[in-house]
Amino acid sequence: MSAEQWAVDAADEILDRCDQLAELTSMEGGIERDYLSPQMAEAYKLTAGWLEKAGIATHIDQAGNLVGRLEGREPGLPALVLGSHLDSVPDAGKYDGILGVVTAVAVAVHLAETGRNKELPFAIEVLGFGDEEGARFGATLLGSYAFGGGWRDEWLDRTDVNGVSMRQAFADFGLDPDKVGEAARKREDYIGYLEFHIEQGPILEQRDRALSSVTSIAAASRYVVTVDGMSSHIATPYDLRHDALTAAAEIISAIDEISQQEGTRANVGEISAEPGGVNVIAGKATFSLDVRAGNDQLRDKVFDRIWKRADEIANRRKVSVSHTMIHTASAVHCDPFLRSCIEEGIEQSEGKEAFGLVSYPGHDGMAVAKLLPIAMLYVRCKGGISHSPYESVRADDVAYGAQAFEQAVFDIAARNINVERVQQLDEEA
Amino acid sequence: MSAEQWAVDAADEILDRCDQLAELTSMEGGIERDYLSPQMAEAYKLTAGWLEKAGIATHIDQAGNLVGRLEGREPGLPALVLGSHLDSVPDAGKYDGILGVVTAVAVAVHLAETGRNKELPFAIEVLGFGDEEGARFGATLLGSYAFGGGWRDEWLDRTDVNGVSMRQAFADFGLDPDKVGEAARKREDYIGYLEFHIEQGPILEQRDRALSSVTSIAAASRYVVTVDGMSSHIATPYDLRHDALTAAAEIISAIDEISQQEGTRANVGEISAEPGGVNVIAGKATFSLDVRAGNDQLRDKVFDRIWKRADEIANRRKVSVSHTMIHTASAVHCDPFLRSCIEEGIEQSEGKEAFGLVSYPGHDGMAVAKLLPIAMLYVRCKGGISHSPYESVRADDVAYGAQAFEQAVFDIAARNINVERVQQLDEEA
Repeated sequence: MSAEQWAVDAADEILDRCDQLAELTSMEGGIERDYLSPQMAEAYKLTAGWLEKAGIATHIDQAGNLVGRLEGREPGLPALVLGSHLDSVPDAGKYDGILGVVTAVAVAVHLAETGRNKELPFAIEVLGFGDEEGARFGATLLGSYAFGGGWRDEWLDRTDVNGVSMRQAFADFGLDPDKVGEAARKREDYIGYLEFHIEQGPILEQRDRALSSVTSIAAASRYVVTVDGMSSHIATPYDLRHDALTAAAEIISAIDEISQQEGTRANVGEISAEPGGVNVIAGKATFSLDVRAGNDQLRDKVFDRIWKRADEIANRRKVSVSHTMIHTASAVHCDPFLRSCIEEGIEQSEGKEAFGLVSYPGHDGMAVAKLLPIAMLYVRCKGGISHSPYESVRADDVAYGAQAFEQAVFDIAARNINVERVQQLDEEA
Repeated sequence: MSAEQWAVDAADEILDRCDQLAELTSMEGGIERDYLSPQMAEAYKLTAGWLEKAGIATHIDQAGNLVGRLEGREPGLPALVLGSHLDSVPDAGKYDGILGVVTAVAVAVHLAETGRNKELPFAIEVLGFGDEEGARFGATLLGSYAFGGGWRDEWLDRTDVNGVSMRQAFADFGLDPDKVGEAARKREDYIGYLEFHIEQGPILEQRDRALSSVTSIAAASRYVVTVDGMSSHIATPYDLRHDALTAAAEIISAIDEISQQEGTRANVGEISAEPGGVNVIAGKATFSLDVRAGNDQLRDKVFDRIWKRADEIANRRKVSVSHTMIHTASAVHCDPFLRSCIEEGIEQSEGKEAFGLVSYPGHDGMAVAKLLPIAMLYVRCKGGISHSPYESVRADDVAYGAQAFEQAVFDIAARNINVERVQQLDEEA
C-alpha cells in the first residue's frame, strides 16, 4: 500500500476516532474534557488501547500526560515527539488538539505495523498532553510545561469551579501532586517535537490549500486597560465631560487601525463601563487588549504605538488611562531543520509548494520549546472556526496531513540527523 | 424685614430642613427614600408640620403625594402649585427634589405669616410628589403623573426589589390602590406650576451665576443598540473579521461627534461584548444610547444622523446594527408667561439679567405639563454633581432662589393674570 493509500484510509479512521473521543465529555449536549478529569482518564484508556494494539507501550507521566513509546532501530534512542493535547475548551469542537494526537497515534501505529520504526535512528513518542487550554484551572499549557521543565508547584493551589484544588485533582487521578515536576524530560533523551494541528484561522481556506508549516507561534501580550474619567449626568456639556467610555471607544478604534497597519493581530474582546446607567456618563471603562505578532519586537512596537495614541486620546478627552499586563509570551520560532522536513512532507503529499504561516493561537509547542526544537504542521479547518462545536475538517485534508506528517518523520531520519546534529542546528538557528 | 433679609434667613432654615429630611432614610450611611415607604410617611409628617404650624392645611392625596393648601384673597380660588418631589435615588444627595419642596414650604409659610396670601388672586398649593425618581418600582414620575391625569392602573402590578407590589405598597401606606387615578386634578382648579430645582449640571457654575429659568425640559429618546458580527479567534485576519465591538466603538465615536456638532446631549453609559474572551473577537456588542435635545425635531435629527452613520460603519465593517427604543418623551416647553415671571424674580433677587437653560434631566413638570402650564427656576449646584452624596448648594444661592421664587408668585399676581388669561396664553404658546 502506498503512503497515499494508507493516508486516505487512515484519515477515515482518524476522523472516526475524533468522534469517539468527542463522546467522552462532561458537558451535556456538547464537548468538554478537562485536565485530570474522569473523562480524560477514559480518553487515555481509549487512546492507549489504539497504541497498545500495535504493541506500542503506554504510560501516564507524573504530570498526567499520556505517553506512547515506539522504539527505533535499537531500544533507548532519543525520541522524536509527535504530540498535541487531549483536553478541550468548554463547548469545544472535535479537532483542536485531538486531531493532532489521533494523527500521531495513526503514524506511530503505521510505523509499528509496517516495521519501519526499525529503520529510524530515533524512537517515537506520542504525547497526549493533559492540559493545553487551561479550562479547568485557568492556567494554560500545564501538561506541556511539565514536560518541558516549566512546571511550578504554586499552580497546585489553584482550584476549579467546584473548589477542587489541582493538588486534590492529581490525587484523584491517581498521581502524586508533589512529583509533577518530575515529569520534566531531559534534553538528551529527545531530538525534537512535531505537532499536527488545525489552523484555527481561515488563511489556508482563503488560499485553497490543505496544509502549511508554521514559521513561529506569535508573541502575545495581554493587558487590562482602564480609563478613568468622572461620571456625571447626561446634562453635562461636552467641554465639561470626562467621559471614560467615549475615550475607550476612540482607543479601541486606534488599536484596530494600528494593528492593521503593522500586519499584526490585536483584539479587544471584553469591555465594561461604570457605573453603567443609560443617562450617566461613564466614569470608568475597562477593556481587555491582546496583541500578537510574529516576533517580540513587532509586538512591542505595536503596543508602544497603541499606548502613545491612548495617551494622546486620554489627554484630549480629560481622562486618564492605565494598563496592567496580565500575560506575556515571547514568540517561539519553529526550528528551521524540522520545519524544512514538515515542508518536504507537505510538498510530497499535497504536490504543491509549501509555505509557512505565523500561528497566532498558542500551542503546546510553546511550552515544549523550552526544552526542544519544535515544528508544526497546520491543516485547513472550515471557515477558520475553532473553539466551537462548528469546528470542521475535510477527510482529504486530513489524509494529506497524515501523509505529510509521516513523511516528515522519514525525512528527519533520511537526512541522517543524529541528536547532536539537531542540537547543533538548533543552536545555530 | 425686606424680601432679601427674609430670604437670607430662610436659606439657613431651608438647608437645615434638607438636613433633617436626609435623616429619614432606608439606607445605612446614605440617603434613600422610596415612594410609599415608612421613611416617606415620616418625611410627610415632618414637612406637613412645618406647613401646619403656619396654619396651612395639609393632606395626602390618593396617589400618595403631600399637599399643603393656602387660600388666596378668597377661599376656593384656582391654585398656583409650587412643587417638587420628596423621594430620592439610592445613595442620593440632600437636594435633588427636596430643596424645591422645602423652598416651596418656606415661601408658602412666609406668605401665610405675612398675610400676603390674602392679596393673591389665586390659592397656593405646595406639592411634595411621592415619586419622581422611580427608584422603587422602575417607572418614574408616578406621583406627578397621577396629579396631571396620566396615571395608569397597570403600574399597580409592578413590584419592588423585595417583591412587594405597588398595589400592596399603596395599601400599606393607608391608601386605596383602586383610587389612585382619582388624584388627577381638574384643569380649572389650577393656574400653573412652578418648580425650584438644583441645576444638576455645571453651566451656572461655569457662568458664575446663582439662578436661571428653564426654557424647556429636553426631548429624550433611549435605545438599546445591538451590533451583530461573528465571534472568532484573534488569529482571524482583518479582512475576514466581523468584529462587533470595534464597530460599536466607531459608532460611539460618531455619536459623540454628531451630538457635539448639533449642540445636543447624547450618552452611551452601558456596554457589553459577547462572548467576552480576551482572545475572542466579539460576535455581539450591545450598548445604551440616550439622546436629548431642547425640542423633538432636533432630537430626531440627531438620532437620524447617528443612525445613518451607524449603518455606514456596519456595512463597512461587515456587521449588522439594530436598535430598540426603550423610552421616548417629547420636549416640554416652559410657559412663556410663567417663565417671564420667574426671570423677573431672578433679576430682582440676583440683580443680573436672567437667561434660560434647557433642562436635560427630567422633572415632575414633564408630567404636570399634561395638565398645566409650567415653569422652572434652576439654582446652581457644586460641580453640577447630582444623584450623589456630593450634591452641594451654596446658602447664598438658595437665598437668591427663595427670593426669586417668592417674587415670581408676586409677579404672577401683579400682572393680574386670572385663570382664563393664563389658559389663553397657554393656548397661544
